[in-house]
Parts: sequence; structure tokens; C-alpha cells
Amino acid sequence: MKFSENIYINWLSKPRVVCGIMTGTSLDGIDTAIAEFFIDRAGRHHFNLLAYNTTDFPSEIKEFIIKIIYEKNSIADISGLNFLLSQIYATSVMDLCKSKNIKLSEIDAIGMHGQTVWHEPKGKDFSNYQTNSTLQLGSVSALANLLGITVVGDFRSADIAVGGSGAPLVPVFDYEFLRDETQDTICLNIGGIANITLLPAGCNYNEIIAIDTGPGNVLIDNFMQFFYNLDYDKNGETARKGKIIEKLSFELMSEPFIKAHPPKSTGRELFNKAYIFSLLYKLNLSNVTPENLIRTLTQFTVLSIAENIKQFGNPSSKIITSGGGCNNKYLMELLSSELPKSNIITTDALGIPSDAKEAICFAYLGWRTLGGMYSNIPSVTGAKRPAILGTIAFPE
Amino acid sequence: MKFSENIYINWLSKPRVVCGIMTGTSLDGIDTAIAEFFIDRAGRHHFNLLAYNTTDFPSEIKEFIIKIIYEKNSIADISGLNFLLSQIYATSVMDLCKSKNIKLSEIDAIGMHGQTVWHEPKGKDFSNYQTNSTLQLGSVSALANLLGITVVGDFRSADIAVGGSGAPLVPVFDYEFLRDETQDTICLNIGGIANITLLPAGCNYNEIIAIDTGPGNVLIDNFMQFFYNLDYDKNGETARKGKIIEKLSFELMSEPFIKAHPPKSTGRELFNKAYIFSLLYKLNLSNVTPENLIRTLTQFTVLSIAENIKQFGNPSSKIITSGGGCNNKYLMELLSSELPKSNIITTDALGIPSDAKEAICFAYLGWRTLGGMYSNIPSVTGAKRPAILGTIAFPE
Repeated sequence: MKFSENIYINWLSKPRVVCGIMTGTSLDGIDTAIAEFFIDRAGRHHFNLLAYNTTDFPSEIKEFIIKIIYEKNSIADISGLNFLLSQIYATSVMDLCKSKNIKLSEIDAIGMHGQTVWHEPKGKDFSNYQTNSTLQLGSVSALANLLGITVVGDFRSADIAVGGSGAPLVPVFDYEFLRDETQDTICLNIGGIANITLLPAGCNYNEIIAIDTGPGNVLIDNFMQFFYNLDYDKNGETARKGKIIEKLSFELMSEPFIKAHPPKSTGRELFNKAYIFSLLYKLNLSNVTPENLIRTLTQFTVLSIAENIKQFGNPSSKIITSGGGCNNKYLMELLSSELPKSNIITTDALGIPSDAKEAICFAYLGWRTLGGMYSNIPSVTGAKRPAILGTIAFPE
Repeated sequence: MKFSENIYINWLSKPRVVCGIMTGTSLDGIDTAIAEFFIDRAGRHHFNLLAYNTTDFPSEIKEFIIKIIYEKNSIADISGLNFLLSQIYATSVMDLCKSKNIKLSEIDAIGMHGQTVWHEPKGKDFSNYQTNSTLQLGSVSALANLLGITVVGDFRSADIAVGGSGAPLVPVFDYEFLRDETQDTICLNIGGIANITLLPAGCNYNEIIAIDTGPGNVLIDNFMQFFYNLDYDKNGETARKGKIIEKLSFELMSEPFIKAHPPKSTGRELFNKAYIFSLLYKLNLSNVTPENLIRTLTQFTVLSIAENIKQFGNPSSKIITSGGGCNNKYLMELLSSELPKSNIITTDALGIPSDAKEAICFAYLGWRTLGGMYSNIPSVTGAKRPAILGTIAFPE
């Protein structure tokens, strides 16, 4: 029996309220969003955002997660964190519902991303088997039974099982809700890493390109922390005071990743403090000022985004931005001047708060799974075939 | 929406072929069974066993699992093993199908127990949260997508989330298939640890008692390994040659666990080599012969089972045995003489090969979950309420 057909008919027969929960690798908070999804008579998908918020991880939990990722741990700790995260997610959902006067019983399902603690789509071989894997902690079954709500989670494993890289998964959301039939569109998310989804006018699934472009906020944030003990460069004010360190800027743009062809993805393994320090050492730049370095890193972030857009997309596109980087005014000004023919807007202008986009996306992925729909895009992830993503726990 | 109602109607409308996969903590093999389940007009459940086998873990995998359980590990290794086990399970299913000429497409679903690497229903508190948890490795989503078959797995988490101990889960199987309306019945499984399910004549769910009685084969096997480098005492021949060490036997039966009241469960944390050596030391027994020790441990296993049956059940019951201990002829003889009024048979006599029982049980639990049925018994696990166990991944 195809379960998808069975669930599909009932699930999609009316609007469904789905809550999305996203916690990223930056551990900068728990994003929760509740939206109502439905299909119109033409078959297009729609949603109404009902509520969203971001709460901080308790600091001990944040430290616990970091320990799990970077140190060797007993299996007891990993098993414990798996259940502990479900309780934290449950609390986030209950708090959001309470603050917006939404009853838990009004929520039809939850799409839980979980906390990524490992992601290695090309693992080494072991005993004739492959260890390609991804691991998002947060027990799907525990969350479902704690809240009495159906939960869909573990979205990335299926794509890896069919040969994909398990990421990115947001492009299906961008395609459904942000594509334009008459205008080339680029969805740019500036999180820790920056990534773009290229949606040519009237494109279909197979024409989507989605790639990481290089650093998003990661380098700026790292050095704001290092020099000023601040989490980020508010409005880009520090960068605005600085001057470009030309030698470093040139070296940064020589990084092979920037001009590499799709598919490509990167992470904090490459773009981190050590990377910058090693370049400063190599270039014999010992006395850079904080402002000048932040300015140069902001420039590099902007140039690497612009370079990828020019090389692989249409620089006259509509560019729809999201992620924390949107709040960096100076960075956005620089981006505009690098892409003068583009029309840059934020998702907020389209009714999607940029802070809530990823949480809405995982609510949508949960909705799709319960509707029996594929959500990975093989041309984007490299998977051999499309797959229904996730596992489902239903408590009643 | 209640998904259970939705799936329930379709799933239970006709017989379904479900494959169960069980790998226990003893790592003595991968048990796979394929059975067809259906409901008769009176509402009772039935199954026809179609195929079963047991294959060994590749030795490197066995070592890898032991390392994960007992050492500190990188999260990369845990994530890798999670996917690797899915591949091994997929191979087991394919091999069984091939050997019995069953097509993969004939299997409607898989019930995957997964490999328990941690089980701690009463975890310590951490930052205002509880760390009660259980962890079975083997990705549900990966297995579903590797085989193209719907998979149900992670059966124990839901029960823990609703306050239970996540074990035992077999009693619902014993109740459905082995209870007798007119005769008190006891299901005795002699695995590493021995456990009993007490099913009074015509009992209902709430009257079921299921407890561990103490050691099953664990002590005998441990010392057969220690003295003879053998995995077990074949037919109990070594024990048959020995004499009881009375002082040790008395001390063993003084172990408080044996006479403790339900609910109770135990494990290799208590009954292991160190436990026996410490008693020998305490009792100043330095020169015991291997035969005499194996005889005494066999006696202890039998007496602890019999004592629990006498104390909490009806010693005139029909006793239905399963597990490796059934093959120990001498142990079974001793058990008969300790319970002279009972009628001891093996599950094999009822058409359930004792080696396949647990795998059939997890196929059955998967079938129940897809039928929207609860499978934990709160009076047995201590859960606050019954729960639909597991998470489901459907690939199509």
C-alpha cells in the first residue's frame, strides 16, 4: 500500500495548521512559527502566518550541545540530549501558543528540524558499508507524545539515503512561494553562511540551482566577538567606519570556493577565525585595526555573494533576502551597489518575517510529507531520486 | 486530525505482510521474520509466519557497536553507525526475501526495533529538564528509502515520553497470541536476562504482569566463555556434570532482586562476571571447579525463575518458553522439576519458532502502529497512558 495516497487525500482536503521548529547550527535561538497551509483550486500552495517567535537556548543546554558536537561523549549524554531537546521544543511551542492565545489542539502537526549535531553526506567507507550520514537530535516520538500532536522530523536522512547531500532543503519552499512567472528571482539567505536559490522566470523544479556563496555573518560575527565581545556588527556601523585592507580583500576573493561551479556547499569548517588569522599571517599584516578588518570581511561577504549571482544567475533579478544579515544596513547598501541592476527586497516585504522564514519552511516540509509529497530537489541535493522526507510520529 | 483513524481504516482492511527486525543487546545476531497479520471477524489478531532467519553481525560492526556503548565517541561515529545499521538491516531483509523467494514489493511494512545503545528510563535531571531516555540506532528514514518500504521504528521512546520505562514491549504480543481464556498462562523468555509475562485465564490488559526474574543465560554464558572459550553450555552438558556449591547457591538466592515485588527489571549491570567473582571472594570460595560453578549458576537461573512464578503467578500454569535458554536441556529439566504442576512447552509447539519470536513481535508492533493501536501496557511499563509507539517513514 502506498501510505502517501492514503494520508494525502485526507490531509490535503482542507487547510491545516502546522507549527515549524528550527534550531540552526549557530545555536542562536529556537525559531518557532505557526502557519495555516492550503492548496488553491489551481493547485498552488499558500500559507497564512499565524504566529512566530524566537527564544534563546538556556545557556547550559547550549553548552551541552556544543560539547556533544565537538568533544567525545558517552552515549548516555547523547541519548539524554535527544530527549531533552524534545522537552525544550515542547516548551517553545507551548509558550508561543500561550502568548498568541492559540490552543495546542488547533495545531494539526509539527515540522521539527531538530538540532544538527553531525552532517557528513560523503562519509568514509566502513566494512563495505557507507557512513554517509546526518544526525538531528530531538526525538520525534517524544515530542509527539509530550504535546499530543503529530510530529514530522528527521527531514535530511531520506535525501542522504537516496544519494543526496541532505541539503539544502529550503529551495522547495522558495520555489513554491517566491518564484515569479515573469521575472528571474533569487532568494538570498544571509545566515552564518550565505546561500542563494536561483529561480529563473517560470522555471520548473529541474531548473532550480541552489548553492552556498561563502560566508554570511560568520566572519563578521566571529571578529565582533573577538575584538568587542559583541555578537554582531549592529547595522554595520563598525564596518562603515573602516577601510578596506586591499591585500587581504584580494586574497579572500582568490579563495577557490567562491568561483567554484555548482553544486557546492560550505560551512564553518572553512570560514572561521583560524582561516582569517592564517591569511593575515601569510600576508604579513600584523597591525590591522578592528574597523578595517570588519570592513574587509563585510566587503568579502558582499563580493562573494555578488560574484556568485553574476556568475550563475541574472544580476538584474529580483533578489529576496532573509536571515540575520538583512539587518546589517551597511552590508545591504554594499550589496545594492555591487548589483545595481537588481531589485533587492526582504522577505518581510512579502509578508514573511525574515526571522521566521526557516521555521515556516520546516512547517511547510512537514505539511508536504503528511500530504505525501516529495520535498528534496534532486538537481539541488544530488539525490538519485525525489523522496518523501522525514519520519512521522502520531500520538492519536 | 487523528491520523490513526485515517491510516487505521485502510491498513486493517486486509491482511498485511510485515517484516520484523530485531537485534538485541547481546549482539548475538540479526533476527528477521516476515509474517502476514490480519484481524478475524471476532476482532482477534492472527499471523502466518512466512519466513525467518538469523544472521550474524559482521565482526567489525559488532566491535563498533560495543565501542559506541562502552566508550566515549565522536558524534561522527554515532551518526555513521546510525546509517550503517540501516544498510545492514536492509541487507538482512533482502537476503531473507531472496532465500525464500519473496519479492520486496510483497512486504507492506517493516517493524525495526533498532540497536539499543542506551536505555535509562530514570535519567538524572539536567537544567530543569529530565534526561529519561532510550536510544535505538538504525535510521528509520534511511531504511525506508533504501528498500522502498514503509518502516516503523523507535518503539520505546513514546512510552518513556509518557512516563513509562520503555520496556517490556513483548507483553502485548503475548497477550494477543498466547493467552488462554480458560487456563493461566505464563510466557517465559530465557534470553540473557529471563522474563515472564503472567496471563491469568481470561485476563484483560490491565491484569497483565510482566517482570524480569533474574539471569537467563547471561551468567552461564559468561563463565562458559571464561572457562572454556565457548559461547554457551550446549544442552547443559557441563552443568549436568557438576555439583551445586551450596554456600554460593544460598547467597545467590539472597539477592534482593529475586524476591522484589513488581514492577521490576534488571540487566547485565547487576548479573555479570564481576558479581559472581565478588561473591566467591566474599564467601572465601577459591577453588571452585568450572562444572560446579556452571551447575550452580544454572541452578540459580532456574530457581530465580521458579521463585518468581511461585510468588507472583500460578505454578500450575501452562508455561510457554522462548529464547536461547530453551535449548539448554538440563536447565529445562531442572525447571520442570522445580515446577512439577506446570505444563511447560516451547513457543515452537505453537508454531512460533522461539528464535523468531521477538522479530515477529516487532513486526506485530509495526502492524499495530500502522493500524493506529496502542502497544504499551501502562500497568506493565508504568506509563501514565497508553501510546501509539514508534515513528513511521514511508517512501512512497
